[in-house]
Order: sequence, then structure tokens, then C-alpha cells
Amino acid sequence: MIIAKTVAQVREQTAKWKADGLTVGLVPTMGYLHEGHASLVDKAVSECDRVVVSDFVNPTQFGPNEDLEAYPRDFEHDCALLEKHGADMVFYPDVSEMYFPDAATYVEILSDMPKMLCGKTRPIHFRGVCTVVAKLFNIVTPDKAYFGQKDAQQLAIIRRMARDMSYGIEIVGCPIIRESDGLAKSSRNTYLNADERKAATVLYRAVTLGKRLIQEGERGADKVTAEMKKLIEAEPLARIDYVSAADGVTMEPVDKLDDGVLVALAVYIGRTRLIDNFTVGE
Amino acid sequence: MIIAKTVAQVREQTAKWKADGLTVGLVPTMGYLHEGHASLVDKAVSECDRVVVSDFVNPTQFGPNEDLEAYPRDFEHDCALLEKHGADMVFYPDVSEMYFPDAATYVEILSDMPKMLCGKTRPIHFRGVCTVVAKLFNIVTPDKAYFGQKDAQQLAIIRRMARDMSYGIEIVGCPIIRESDGLAKSSRNTYLNADERKAATVLYRAVTLGKRLIQEGERGADKVTAEMKKLIEAEPLARIDYVSAADGVTMEPVDKLDDGVLVALAVYIGRTRLIDNFTVGE
Repeated sequence: MIIAKTVAQVREQTAKWKADGLTVGLVPTMGYLHEGHASLVDKAVSECDRVVVSDFVNPTQFGPNEDLEAYPRDFEHDCALLEKHGADMVFYPDVSEMYFPDAATYVEILSDMPKMLCGKTRPIHFRGVCTVVAKLFNIVTPDKAYFGQKDAQQLAIIRRMARDMSYGIEIVGCPIIRESDGLAKSSRNTYLNADERKAATVLYRAVTLGKRLIQEGERGADKVTAEMKKLIEAEPLARIDYVSAADGVTMEPVDKLDDGVLVALAVYIGRTRLIDNFTVGE
Repeated sequence: MIIAKTVAQVREQTAKWKADGLTVGLVPTMGYLHEGHASLVDKAVSECDRVVVSDFVNPTQFGPNEDLEAYPRDFEHDCALLEKHGADMVFYPDVSEMYFPDAATYVEILSDMPKMLCGKTRPIHFRGVCTVVAKLFNIVTPDKAYFGQKDAQQLAIIRRMARDMSYGIEIVGCPIIRESDGLAKSSRNTYLNADERKAATVLYRAVTLGKRLIQEGERGADKVTAEMKKLIEAEPLARIDYVSAADGVTMEPVDKLDDGVLVALAVYIGRTRLIDNFTVGE
């Protein structure tokens, strides 16, 4: 596996692959890789001739009071996982390789979409995500790019950005990967102490309850999210950020839980903010 | 010459060229082509194996009270000129091909750069320019892209955007092409009636005066721009928008006319807004 630290190195290699008629898949990550990321790499390897994984904790998507500094990193472990899963190149740039000191250009969706759900507490988050993903698209020029459904709003926003910006890149969403007790895999799970780790299953329990209520015939968004909230509020270490039903494409609030609607939640467990979601009918 | 109306057609053709190892040059235009545009095409043809010219009046770079509807169009004439100058493809999309009805993604430089000079009277202009040029970059994926120095701030902004967004595309600036009496070639010159056309030479006369003062040793920006303004104010049909000296890269105001400084002006001749500029030491 090639370890590329510079943009030039990535460009040169992907140009060679493309000149040889090979397709290229991109898996953008912030590193500290887990089985969720591995599933994206597996999918990319199965669909593309060559797979590039970016491993970059992107500063522009963190707010001033967020966990940029604390975000866990383990590049050696990342490389071992990527080798094992058959990635061809990992792009591991320094911040200075990605952003000039006076960098000021951003890609942003100027609609309500990035202000909904996670955008309410993370106002600049999706602007940073769109910007770094657009840069990675420009550097790697992949045929396909892979994102996890765990970050459902991010996936919807990337789809919209790629469409609006005329990127000829297929955006592939991949299912949430969970621990054996249902907790969605996340690099941030490492922040949890033992008690919090137990409490964190409340997100999946809420997801399971929501799904069951819908399966039993309930289609009122308020009704279902209220029951989910009640369950979460019973967990002393949990504090709800939001439990919401949204249009699966636009992220706008909906009243009725039709197929395709996203039911998403963000919950603080202690100081750690975790997210989870499901799509009605999937 | 290929006439492409759709993004898919452009992508397919440029992919074929690239698979054959050919380099591709892009000349973005709003059509109604003149010798200024022709000089960009000539330069592109001399440097690239294949040349794509986009011919698209981009609505997102026009303000609500600007001349989007009135902007002159003559596609047949454009095609004849492009054929003659050796362009390989003209991309001539409908607005609906470039923008979905709910398109909301923009590329924007969030610094003072796009607020200076023309940005003062055209606050959303450069956001629209950056967005459409980024889209054209994504559609055509050129090796080089060509822009006229007449739109000096646009050129500086595109350079910055391409750098910040990690586009591996060389941005080539080309000299201003002028009428025999010095008026910079512009599609908007067609708005001028006979009296205005005569008065419009005041921009070039001001440019010539500014250059002469600097050649004679004057390096004070205020002094030179004041003399240029005085000359323009003597022309009854002219109304100054700005006459300014700016850093050639950042577009920030400067006091001293060192080499590389941009001296730029925008002047209304009747209702038509014209621009011109020169770079100190060039």
C-alpha cells in the first residue's frame, strides 16, 4: 500500500491509474479506523480497480468548542487495517498540505439543509465537510466515493454538493456497522468510560423502539420521536441534542413517517456527542 | 467542432481525449465572442492538444438589478469564430443543464478579496463566478484554463479558488485586447451608442495617463488615481465607480505603486459599466 503525504504524490499516482484505464474509488475518513470504515473500504475494493483512503482530521469541520485536539489518532493501526482490507493508497496529509495559511475558499450549501439536525449545534460543520470532500474529489478525481450511513445528514449533503457542483462521481452510501450490543461504531466511542459505554446503548435502544413502533403501524413523527425521547430521558448519563424525523433528501422536518424518511438522533453521553439513525422502510 | 449541449456529452468526450493521453484546455466564456476571447482560444490551442470553450451566460454571477436579460448573445457568430480559431468543442448548455431548480451549493472565498473593487457594487458576482468555474472544472477536468487579464480581479480570484480547492489546473492569464482607439474589447461594448462609444475611450485614456505618471517616477497610489479620476470626471458621459490601486494577488488596497500592483477602474458610460486595468511594471 502506498502511503502518500502530499497532494502531488496522489495526483501523480491516480493519473497513472487512470491512464491505464483503471477505475478509482475514494473513501474519505478522519482516521482512527474501525469496522465501519473497513466496510466502506471492502465495498470500494469490490467495485473499483484501485482504492484511495484519505486519513485526515479536517480542522475546518470542527467548531471552536469541539474536539479537534482530542480527536483520536492512530496512523499505524489505520495502515494495518487498510493493508488488510486491500486499500491501494492511503493519503495522510499534514494540515499545511491541505490548507494554505490564508486559505479562505469554501464550498457551502446555502439552503436550510446544513442547518437542520446536527447543523443546529454545529453551524460550520457541513461547510467544512463539503470543502474538504470537494478538495479530495479534486485531488483524487475518483469514479466513486464511499460514505457511511451513520452520518446520514453528511451523506445527504455530500450527495447534494456533488450533484450541484457537477462532479461526475457516484456517491455510495454504506450501512451502519454496530458493536454486538448495537452501539454504532464511531471513533468517538473511545471517549466513553465504562459507565458511559453502557449508557451509550440508549441510542440503539431508541432506534430499535422507533423501528418497532413504525412496524406496528405508527406513522406520526411526533408520536414516535416522543417515545424515543422518553426512553433516552430515562438514562441518567444521556442528554438529548435532537430526535427528529426528516425528509431523506432535503433533511427538512416531516410529520409523517413515510418510507424513505430519516429518523435521526444525537445524544450526549457525558461529554461525548453520539449520533445514530434509521430510514423508514429500509 | 463538436457542439455539446449536455454535461454528459462533454464528460464523455474529454474522458476519451484523456484516455488517448491528450491534454485539454478550457476557455470559459459568456459568449458574444470578440477578439479578446479569440486570443484566449489561440493561446489554448497553442498549448493544449484539445480545446473546450464554454459559452454560457451564467445567471448566478448577475445581481438582481444587473444585465442578465440584456446580455448579448449570438451563438452562430460564436461558432464561426471558434471554428476559425481551432476550438475542438463548444459547450453550450441551457441554464437547466447547469443548475437544478433547487441548486444551492456555492464556492465562495470568505475573505475581503471578493468584496474589493468590483465586489463593492457587485456583492454576489464573484461567488457566482467561482461556482460556475468550479463546475466547469469538474465537468471538463482541463489541464489548463484561460482567462483574460481585462477581468483582473476575476483572474486573481480564480487563481485563489483553484489553489485553495486543490484543483491541479494551471490558470493562464492573457493580455487585454483593445480596439484601435484603445477601448478594451468587451461584449458589453455593444450596449454603447455612438456618443457613448466615443466617451468610452476615457478608460484607456486614464490607463495611459496612469502608466505615464508611474513611468515618470510617481509611485503614490493616491496621486496617480486622483489624476486618473480627474481625467475621467472631465468626460460628461462618464461616472466613476472606482479607480483603485490594489495588491495584485490579494486585491487589498495599497498606498505605493510597486511593481505587480494592479491599478483598476470601473466607469459607467451612460448605463453601461465598463472596466479596465494595468499592472505596474508590466
